[in-house]
Amino acid sequence: MQAVIAVLPGDGIGPEVVAEGVKVLQAVAARFGHTFTLREGLIGGCAIDATGEPLPAETVALCRASDAILLGAVGGPKWDDPQARVRPEQGLLGIRKALGLFANLRPVTVHPRLIGASPLRPERLQGVDLIVVRELTGGIYFGEKRRERGPDGEWASDLCLYTEAEVVRVVRVAGQLARRRRGKLTLVDKANVLETSRLWRSITTRLVREEFADLEFETMLVDACAMHLIRRPTDFDVIVTENMFGDILTDEASMLAGSMGMLPSASLAEGRLGLYEPIHGSAPDIAGQGKANPLATILSVAMLLRHSLDLPEEAACVEAAVATVIDRGIVTADIATPGQVIATTTAVGDAVAAVI
Amino acid sequence: MQAVIAVLPGDGIGPEVVAEGVKVLQAVAARFGHTFTLREGLIGGCAIDATGEPLPAETVALCRASDAILLGAVGGPKWDDPQARVRPEQGLLGIRKALGLFANLRPVTVHPRLIGASPLRPERLQGVDLIVVRELTGGIYFGEKRRERGPDGEWASDLCLYTEAEVVRVVRVAGQLARRRRGKLTLVDKANVLETSRLWRSITTRLVREEFADLEFETMLVDACAMHLIRRPTDFDVIVTENMFGDILTDEASMLAGSMGMLPSASLAEGRLGLYEPIHGSAPDIAGQGKANPLATILSVAMLLRHSLDLPEEAACVEAAVATVIDRGIVTADIATPGQVIATTTAVGDAVAAVI
Ligand SMILES: CC(C)[C@H](C(=O)O)[C@@H](O)C(=O)O
Ligand SMILES: CC(C)[C@H](C(=O)O)[C@@H](O)C(=O)O
Repeated sequence: MQAVIAVLPGDGIGPEVVAEGVKVLQAVAARFGHTFTLREGLIGGCAIDATGEPLPAETVALCRASDAILLGAVGGPKWDDPQARVRPEQGLLGIRKALGLFANLRPVTVHPRLIGASPLRPERLQGVDLIVVRELTGGIYFGEKRRERGPDGEWASDLCLYTEAEVVRVVRVAGQLARRRRGKLTLVDKANVLETSRLWRSITTRLVREEFADLEFETMLVDACAMHLIRRPTDFDVIVTENMFGDILTDEASMLAGSMGMLPSASLAEGRLGLYEPIHGSAPDIAGQGKANPLATILSVAMLLRHSLDLPEEAACVEAAVATVIDRGIVTADIATPGQVIATTTAVGDAVAAVI
Repeated sequence: MQAVIAVLPGDGIGPEVVAEGVKVLQAVAARFGHTFTLREGLIGGCAIDATGEPLPAETVALCRASDAILLGAVGGPKWDDPQARVRPEQGLLGIRKALGLFANLRPVTVHPRLIGASPLRPERLQGVDLIVVRELTGGIYFGEKRRERGPDGEWASDLCLYTEAEVVRVVRVAGQLARRRRGKLTLVDKANVLETSRLWRSITTRLVREEFADLEFETMLVDACAMHLIRRPTDFDVIVTENMFGDILTDEASMLAGSMGMLPSASLAEGRLGLYEPIHGSAPDIAGQGKANPLATILSVAMLLRHSLDLPEEAACVEAAVATVIDRGIVTADIATPGQVIATTTAVGDAVAAVI
């Protein structure tokens, strides 16, 4: 097949890990006879430096004209002033909103060889296989923001707002996913306190009754979920939740997999368009040193092949190659066990490409 | 000394664990020659059943006329309809607001004998000793809530609002605590996205510079904190954060201690008045069976003695008694290790009182 893929390396370790993702895309193209046209764009801090804006209009246009987007990471100390007018994160939030990437899928599985890299006891991790579907374009991230100075000093506010349509479309994605997996759906909210959570709960409960009656459905408060993710992670299949809760819970869940360096994500719009990125950040402290783990990005490439290009066989091939490379012990420091020789970012990417 | 203590058992296991807390208070009174006058009040589901309201005016008056408040837990399936006009949680939120209990202190330490009860690897837990100071009467919990039906379906919103004064007073509590501990303060926020977080960050940074320059100060994003709490929990001393983040992070942190059944909390107003409660909920599934761990409540009694009654020696005596009882292996199922004989709620309380 022919496909156009926008490549947005971003900041920090972004360019390094994306380079390995691109290498894997090229290996897949060669092995399966596809033509992937890759087009690079700017986002985040590097875009601010080059254009003054974290999300230049050309980048949005480039993404709109593509079948899928591969992104590295944005941000770094250089652009870190929270009071600045433009910040790298605005690029990320902006592209999500501009392309309507409302469903963020974050799978968490634990490769048997990496059980030793997790801070959790091995027996809790055996068989962990969950996916968080995080709503990505609504809620408190995008609600009205205010900051003012009154007679008694400053105050600020953020509005968390959700509409029925926003809840319905992301719960549908989660429900369909659960149906293709183990058939269990957990809604995480704070319905004992928040009105938006009560909206999520009533809409989801109704939707499950009407469209997903075949699923096992449960609701869980976000505080309880933060606990159970660690206590009994194997109990979860698909978790669906709002934007901010999803942000917190997925970073927490990454500890199950031993390292953030292992976890891919897909942000999907209606239709096939999607943006694929590792869930880790730009890690400026290790940028440019060949230490970054490229597997989260490479596994994001697998999700890209599956969801946006409808190439499930190719996706499975990438995932199998990653497993093989881990089995052979070709890993970066974050997931190495004592005594293991540590491989560079490039060496890991080369190994995956070679297996493909 | 003479003191009046309001006792609010609440629902589920609340009455059982509070009974053991009261037993310990009486043991302290006998040993140290104090007179504690205990007055019971209704809150939560039992208050709804008796009066129609989760927080009857008499309960508020009782608390106002007391030196300290000991609370069990509220809620249960009987009152669980999120659409109901009155819900047990409103009692808890209401008493916090009515009494101005703005600083919620949640210490997390790991008793060496309980390291085996945690889902985390033992080597990560050695020496964990942190305290989360959660803002308790502001933010999205108390901001304007709306739910409406428009032409395109329903929508709902919650407003998160913070004023300078709210941030300043709780950060001061945290700073003073850090000064008496290991001198490290971590502000947790989401300043890369939320305006309220940027307010928290600028005010806290200024306050630390002006009043707490002797402390080691760092800021951390809430998603990163959810990860680091598990990855390197010993790095934390005092964490200060807003209401909702504190709710999620403290439940997560409870897993470090092996069980929610071990963790006490204090909710403090200006002055000495405070409300003391275990951080666990009403656990309706095990209510009335003598299975509940009373140690979180008993450790809350220790906090009550220290903070509201200014009796540090008595507080230390309770804490030492708890450690002794755990060392002797007199524990409930949640923190027992395989092969241990499991003690009832009452037996654990009796043992602590006897040691005192
Ligand atoms: C960088 C930040 C705005 C972003 C978020 O919170 O969504 C990141 O933490 C993520 O999870 O992708
Ligand atoms: C019951 C609920 C309203 C409460 C909260 O979220 O504050 C509880 O979870 C807690 O942490 O004390």
